[in-house]
Amino acid sequence: MTYCVGLLLDEGIVMLSDTRTNAGLDNVSTYQKMFIFEDKGRRVITIMTSGNLSVSQTTIARLREAIEAPDASPETSIMLAPTLFKVADIIGGTLAEVRSHVDKKLSAMQGATASFIVAGQCESGAMRMFLIYPEGNHIESTKHTPYLQIGEHKYGKPILDRVVKASTSLVDAQKAVLLSMDSTLRSNLSVGMPLDLVVVEKDALRVTLHRRIEAGDAAFRAMSEAWSVALREGFQRITI
Amino acid sequence: MTYCVGLLLDEGIVMLSDTRTNAGLDNVSTYQKMFIFEDKGRRVITIMTSGNLSVSQTTIARLREAIEAPDASPETSIMLAPTLFKVADIIGGTLAEVRSHVDKKLSAMQGATASFIVAGQCESGAMRMFLIYPEGNHIESTKHTPYLQIGEHKYGKPILDRVVKASTSLVDAQKAVLLSMDSTLRSNLSVGMPLDLVVVEKDALRVTLHRRIEAGDAAFRAMSEAWSVALREGFQRITI
Repeated sequence: MTYCVGLLLDEGIVMLSDTRTNAGLDNVSTYQKMFIFEDKGRRVITIMTSGNLSVSQTTIARLREAIEAPDASPETSIMLAPTLFKVADIIGGTLAEVRSHVDKKLSAMQGATASFIVAGQCESGAMRMFLIYPEGNHIESTKHTPYLQIGEHKYGKPILDRVVKASTSLVDAQKAVLLSMDSTLRSNLSVGMPLDLVVVEKDALRVTLHRRIEAGDAAFRAMSEAWSVALREGFQRITI
Repeated sequence: MTYCVGLLLDEGIVMLSDTRTNAGLDNVSTYQKMFIFEDKGRRVITIMTSGNLSVSQTTIARLREAIEAPDASPETSIMLAPTLFKVADIIGGTLAEVRSHVDKKLSAMQGATASFIVAGQCESGAMRMFLIYPEGNHIESTKHTPYLQIGEHKYGKPILDRVVKASTSLVDAQKAVLLSMDSTLRSNLSVGMPLDLVVVEKDALRVTLHRRIEAGDAAFRAMSEAWSVALREGFQRITI
């Protein structure tokens, strides 16, 4: 399974993904699920993927090919598309094509699907974030729904519901997504370290921070432990 | 949807269920999902249900009929069955029968399934708790897995994972299941008040506490608010 969460805040974008690809418990693999397309100072696009690995990897590969093609155009290349909405459209279209192609071949096992979160900013445009469904259509994050999740999203939702608003600072937002991931890791074995964390500050038009958090990361473990203590203390103080 | 959680602790049993039956957002109904069978001082059995209402209500009705039948026997009546394991067997068998009967009639819409949590104690036996699957088979709670959930269980799992052990007191356990339910209510509109809370003390062989928590319940709202404050304070104290 997968857990990916993206926040679209007043100050910027925060994206967090795990890297566990499940092929049974004795064959746990690590694959990156976070992909960055950057033209520094002009545009930055981050994509997180969930679902069938062959579908999402093929989709990303095709997006790269379209960028590098000699006849790349604003209609086909996410690095030339005029708006982030158009970027989401290109990604959705590519995903739908790949999925239907793979689905036909895999009709026996059915369900080779994938979902993406796409967020970023193009020069002279606003920051935007989209959730792209397996069928290729997408929904957009708004001021009132500043976060989107894909994959094993339920365990980590309560903390987001309580602390994340559009006005949340980027530091608090990183804490929130890491704690949301921590709850998911604890409750579901098929979501696993390492993690990829990306922060894109508003109008920076480049990745501000990209952190790979490995399994033994001391800071992450300390934060996780501090959160456990805070929860237990808070729990003890409550009376019914 | 539904959320039901049962705890099997050293000191007793704690069961909590919501009452929302979903028939679309403009037709929200309330149905009891918690059923109690009690022969005070001799045996107490609590059942919580999740899934298709026609299946679970018919199953409960058949269990009642079997208890009241003139030829009721330890093979058919959960009030005469010698052990709680046998009780779970009878319930599982009844559920499987009802489900397959309804499924045949509803083959077009498929998926008329239900799951139950059954917990209780019979005279001279230990407290036990079972999760009964739609197919009628069941798993049992153990010292190392002191809680079982059915329905919309993921939002409320992180808090249980952190605070519930077999040695947890009945007071803390009530807090834990109520906070687990609170997280679920906040994150999923299709789980709804009022709630049914039941506590069965070890060896009491009767229901120790049965509380119906209505939508406006002041104590529940105060607890929910205190938990929000504790979470936010804990969150603020953590550094990354």
